[in-house]
Amino acid sequence: MELVWLVPVAGFMGVVFALWLAWDVLRRDTGTDAMRDVASMIFEGAMAFLRRQYQTIAILAVVTGILITIIVGSVSEGVKDITLNPAGQVAYGERVVGHWREGLLTGIAFLAGAAASALSGFIGMYIAVRSNARCASAATRSLKEAITVSLRGGAVSGFLVVSLSLLGVSGIFLTYSRLLGNPASITPFLIVGFGFGASFVALFAQLGGGIYTKAADVGADLVGKVEAGIPEDDPRNAAVVADLVGDNVGDCAGRGADLFESMSAENIGAMILGVVIYTMTGKIEWIMFPLVLRSFGIIATIVGLTSVPFFTRDDGRQNPMAPLNAGYYIVSILSVVGLFIATKVMLSDVWYWFFGCGLIGIATGIAFVYITQYYTSGSWRPVQEIARASRTGPATNIIIGTAVGYETTAATAITIGLALVISFVLGSHADIAGVPGFSSGVFGTAVATMGMLMSAAYILSMDTFGPITDNAGGITEMAGAPESARHITDSLDAVGNTTKALTKGYAVASAGLAAFLLFSAYLDKVKERLDIPLTQGLPIDLSNVDVFVGGLLGVMLVFLFSSLAIRAVGNTASTIIEEVRRQFREDPGIMAGTSRPDYGRAVDITARAALRQMVAPGLLAVGMPVAVGLIFRFTRTEDSGWLAVAGLLMIGTIGGIIVATFLNNVGGAWDNAKKYIEAGKLTVETANPGETIVLGKGSDAHKAAVVGDTVGDPFKDTAGPSLHVLVKLLSTVTLVMAPLFIS
Amino acid sequence: MELVWLVPVAGFMGVVFALWLAWDVLRRDTGTDAMRDVASMIFEGAMAFLRRQYQTIAILAVVTGILITIIVGSVSEGVKDITLNPAGQVAYGERVVGHWREGLLTGIAFLAGAAASALSGFIGMYIAVRSNARCASAATRSLKEAITVSLRGGAVSGFLVVSLSLLGVSGIFLTYSRLLGNPASITPFLIVGFGFGASFVALFAQLGGGIYTKAADVGADLVGKVEAGIPEDDPRNAAVVADLVGDNVGDCAGRGADLFESMSAENIGAMILGVVIYTMTGKIEWIMFPLVLRSFGIIATIVGLTSVPFFTRDDGRQNPMAPLNAGYYIVSILSVVGLFIATKVMLSDVWYWFFGCGLIGIATGIAFVYITQYYTSGSWRPVQEIARASRTGPATNIIIGTAVGYETTAATAITIGLALVISFVLGSHADIAGVPGFSSGVFGTAVATMGMLMSAAYILSMDTFGPITDNAGGITEMAGAPESARHITDSLDAVGNTTKALTKGYAVASAGLAAFLLFSAYLDKVKERLDIPLTQGLPIDLSNVDVFVGGLLGVMLVFLFSSLAIRAVGNTASTIIEEVRRQFREDPGIMAGTSRPDYGRAVDITARAALRQMVAPGLLAVGMPVAVGLIFRFTRTEDSGWLAVAGLLMIGTIGGIIVATFLNNVGGAWDNAKKYIEAGKLTVETANPGETIVLGKGSDAHKAAVVGDTVGDPFKDTAGPSLHVLVKLLSTVTLVMAPLFIS
Repeated sequence: MELVWLVPVAGFMGVVFALWLAWDVLRRDTGTDAMRDVASMIFEGAMAFLRRQYQTIAILAVVTGILITIIVGSVSEGVKDITLNPAGQVAYGERVVGHWREGLLTGIAFLAGAAASALSGFIGMYIAVRSNARCASAATRSLKEAITVSLRGGAVSGFLVVSLSLLGVSGIFLTYSRLLGNPASITPFLIVGFGFGASFVALFAQLGGGIYTKAADVGADLVGKVEAGIPEDDPRNAAVVADLVGDNVGDCAGRGADLFESMSAENIGAMILGVVIYTMTGKIEWIMFPLVLRSFGIIATIVGLTSVPFFTRDDGRQNPMAPLNAGYYIVSILSVVGLFIATKVMLSDVWYWFFGCGLIGIATGIAFVYITQYYTSGSWRPVQEIARASRTGPATNIIIGTAVGYETTAATAITIGLALVISFVLGSHADIAGVPGFSSGVFGTAVATMGMLMSAAYILSMDTFGPITDNAGGITEMAGAPESARHITDSLDAVGNTTKALTKGYAVASAGLAAFLLFSAYLDKVKERLDIPLTQGLPIDLSNVDVFVGGLLGVMLVFLFSSLAIRAVGNTASTIIEEVRRQFREDPGIMAGTSRPDYGRAVDITARAALRQMVAPGLLAVGMPVAVGLIFRFTRTEDSGWLAVAGLLMIGTIGGIIVATFLNNVGGAWDNAKKYIEAGKLTVETANPGETIVLGKGSDAHKAAVVGDTVGDPFKDTAGPSLHVLVKLLSTVTLVMAPLFIS
Repeated sequence: MELVWLVPVAGFMGVVFALWLAWDVLRRDTGTDAMRDVASMIFEGAMAFLRRQYQTIAILAVVTGILITIIVGSVSEGVKDITLNPAGQVAYGERVVGHWREGLLTGIAFLAGAAASALSGFIGMYIAVRSNARCASAATRSLKEAITVSLRGGAVSGFLVVSLSLLGVSGIFLTYSRLLGNPASITPFLIVGFGFGASFVALFAQLGGGIYTKAADVGADLVGKVEAGIPEDDPRNAAVVADLVGDNVGDCAGRGADLFESMSAENIGAMILGVVIYTMTGKIEWIMFPLVLRSFGIIATIVGLTSVPFFTRDDGRQNPMAPLNAGYYIVSILSVVGLFIATKVMLSDVWYWFFGCGLIGIATGIAFVYITQYYTSGSWRPVQEIARASRTGPATNIIIGTAVGYETTAATAITIGLALVISFVLGSHADIAGVPGFSSGVFGTAVATMGMLMSAAYILSMDTFGPITDNAGGITEMAGAPESARHITDSLDAVGNTTKALTKGYAVASAGLAAFLLFSAYLDKVKERLDIPLTQGLPIDLSNVDVFVGGLLGVMLVFLFSSLAIRAVGNTASTIIEEVRRQFREDPGIMAGTSRPDYGRAVDITARAALRQMVAPGLLAVGMPVAVGLIFRFTRTEDSGWLAVAGLLMIGTIGGIIVATFLNNVGGAWDNAKKYIEAGKLTVETANPGETIVLGKGSDAHKAAVVGDTVGDPFKDTAGPSLHVLVKLLSTVTLVMAPLFIS
């Protein structure tokens, strides 16, 4: 049990560090009265949305938790001990957990995961909406201070999410194994409910927040900029506060819950894969390893984040991305050191194979940072190609944007494919006391995933940085702060766009790497139910009609889910547009600037509409795998249920990764193509040879680019991020519900 | 060998019927001098394009054919006889074909398939461009005559394609088995090159034609309607002839080659699946059955097509779709009769199971006719939803269009999934002399596929009907024919849009049904190489890292290929736009209507650009499966090569079906949303309650819908149809290249 003491230490270090950051941010100056006024409206709107959203989610979660308890309790046959049989196979012993007890433990784990996920989302957003005015105020003084405030505000969320997930998973593991006396080898199977609970809440948080934020954004733009001809963030637009609220509920609360569940589900999946090696070797380290690796990650991230101010120059010429990148490299280097210590100390004499796997994971994270930047930043060919296509109007902007977006899937698929194959091969070379190559190979992909996630707190901090600076920009605009402050928040906002795109690339990559380990965890669960030794292969035969049709339905689920999410934004946006129009019509004083629009009502109406729209896609995601499993189980052969679900899970995951990559990247690229034109970088030759004119803001090319940007909004901020969660939810729902699909 | 005599009879009946139709069309009046003038420009442009395109394709095909001969000849170990071993398994006997002989036979089959596919495309287009002026002339007299001319012109293509495929496959089967003395059981494996050749040419024909047609369409619209403000098909627009040429080279030549290869590849795949049952039972009928079923299909279609005029009323109130639908029902009913006879006579005492499978296939075809209409016709919710979203501009038009397009994948996936499972289950119930359930089950899906394809000639006739009427409309416009004629061609054009959409739905459905049988054929080929009895299962394990990564790369291939195809349209369109601008600039007389633009130069420039752009996606499609197979074979374990290819093939097929469905349907829906608005059906409430105004042609909503329509063009006419071909090409290329992937 060497190094395991690090888990609580790092967990509490993370929490204490987050509290210190929060104290540091909250003690700062909150700016002028006008700033405080706007900030308090945002705060109230965000809290009101979250309250309402959490009520809905709580009801759904409690009902689901009870259903899980009943379903698992009634259809399962309980859990058998996992032992080494005389043939040297990992097989099963006595039944050690009764079926009702299993149902109850799973249900409780589900609710614990759901609660922790909700808490992560709440805290992250609470600090973010408390940081925005402070960032705006700091921006009136210096860039360096503004960066510090926004990054620290974001880091509160980052550290709490990561630490809560670590403490939550290790706490429930400890409770179920030590306190309740379950064998360590079966405990990972008992706590899968925690991962399901986390992804359940994450799905609704990301969907609801994502629908809200983009409906408010699209609605505010269409009714303000396009219809009424007033600038962005203009206080006369009743939807403008809703728009600022949206940044918080979508990007902070949603993404916080998303990464919380990523880490929890993947951690538990990795522990399940460690069970085989633990049983063969008797060394509990193989189960605890993922927790320890994450602990090193937290420590590395604390150092890296603290170092950022040292790289920040306040001469106004530095790209704010530079110190953030420097900090990320520090985190990566320290992660390698931590990985070295953890593998060397815990994984006996085959440590170097898994050290290699972890390196692959860390390298994959770095690769995605560059891939995402290449495809979504204005410095390279893809975005420039879209900007040029805007010269012939919105249609060619969309056509070329789609072509670029589809193209981005190639780099993603090749990188994930390489990382998977290499880490699998490295892991399968590790020769551990009779453990079959495929078990240690899959464990290798788990180590790669955990290695990549070591920097999660840093990535998440940069992500939450985005909405804080975005809000700060809105506050300076609405509060009439000096031009220089707006200039600073604008430059931070541009960086925030990049960091938000990076986080999504990172989330997709981790989902891709994790797919394999989560799928293997599902198979281990099926083997356990079918009494097949865990060391024996269980082929999921693609040429089996159930698997194939399950896969077809899985890819279809990805598209149907995206359809519902995208349409939800459209529907909610029309609600807010009608409300703003109504306010303009009924009170002409608003347009004249003499009376103040009813921001609260716009916030409220959007919230209600978004929450209504979130239910259908959410239930589809949870319900469809279960429905497919049940239908195939009862209409086809004995094994058809779990086979069809396996196909749905695995091929749906592939589809989800590819489509999410497209949606995220095309949205980012359209956004930055518009910014590229606004920066005056798009030129066209005139009839006189050699003479060129700039097609800048207000040109037809710019209008075309705005169309692309608007189309990309629900792609990149609603459907895309929700798909990451969907992919992982598929894994956790099938893991927990597996007994239902097996005759 | 009962009923096999029907194959040559039906094949020649089809050819003779097509010749009669061609004679009937060609003897008709070719209209006014002006019409003939325009028609001859289209004819010359189309022929020039085809000549140039076929030169490129011929070079690529000959090189590929030689490569195939060399590769198969040098890496294969020859073909062993397939026999029944004493254990009652279908296993292997003596080597009966040497490896160089196998390479040569495969290469020759490839070239034969390529040549027949090219011939189909050529003839279809030749008659279509000869029919357009005759249809325009007929439209000056009556609707009934116009329908007759265009449908008969289209049917020439339909019947020749289907008959040539039937005669080609049966001819090469006969040559290789009877003339060259190869055993009947291995001949299906020797003729797979025919399918590969057919899909190879189809891919380039569809890509080149698809790029050309949409580049000309988009280019002509952008430079004419948008920039110069002149109407569609205005003779002052130099791109207008290129646009009319495009309809022929894309829709006739491309789709003809597409369906030729569908039928050929699926027919050969079905024959391969019949090998197992033939070997167990000794009855050659199991191999010949697909050919006989198609023969009945041709006869049924001849009757159905001849019946259309009986349902046509010439009172101007009939929807021209009605008689076409009536004819389709006649074909379906006669197909059921043919299916009954063929199964009853040929498939011994288990015939009723396969009769059920065939019924499923026929029903699937009918279901897709309705699904496609629901999603792409203005009479239902989806298109109306897009039209309404156009009121808030192009961005919401695109957003809601995308949501609708993604939604359409659900009906497709569920229908294909149901058809596959049911036909598999029915087939596996057939108890045939020890044939394992999965072999007869897969044969069941093959019968369903062949059942569906019985109506292929009818569907293809309706498809080619589209470009003929579209061209006729352009000719009446450019030749200044009376308004009444234009009215008739417009109504036929609208029907043509529907029938074109139907064909694509039909092609996707057949690709989905066929996926399973073609995949099984690939596995049979792998088994043959690995000396595994054909009656033994060969699981393709999804939890194997090679299969999973292969699948990830397969879905990625679908997106990357679509990206290249869509971008190719954009690039080619800018070429034609620049050419038209240059002509306007250099000769002001064109705009004034005093001088005639240089149509030929525009046609020529577009052709050259399109053909350049077709090469990259084409080579990607052929090269990537081979590259993946080789890389995995040589860098991983012994079995990794063929396993990764299996994953790529199967999961790539799922991705391809879903993405093609999206691209086809969203394009059709955007097109018809625009037409819905043009028909004056979109209204908006004014400030006065109860009062509504129509947002018709020229309104902002209409402009927004035009953006959607333009975006949809390369989706539905370039990338989507090319993806059908890609999916089937994946099957044929992996079938032929299988020896390369096996150590």
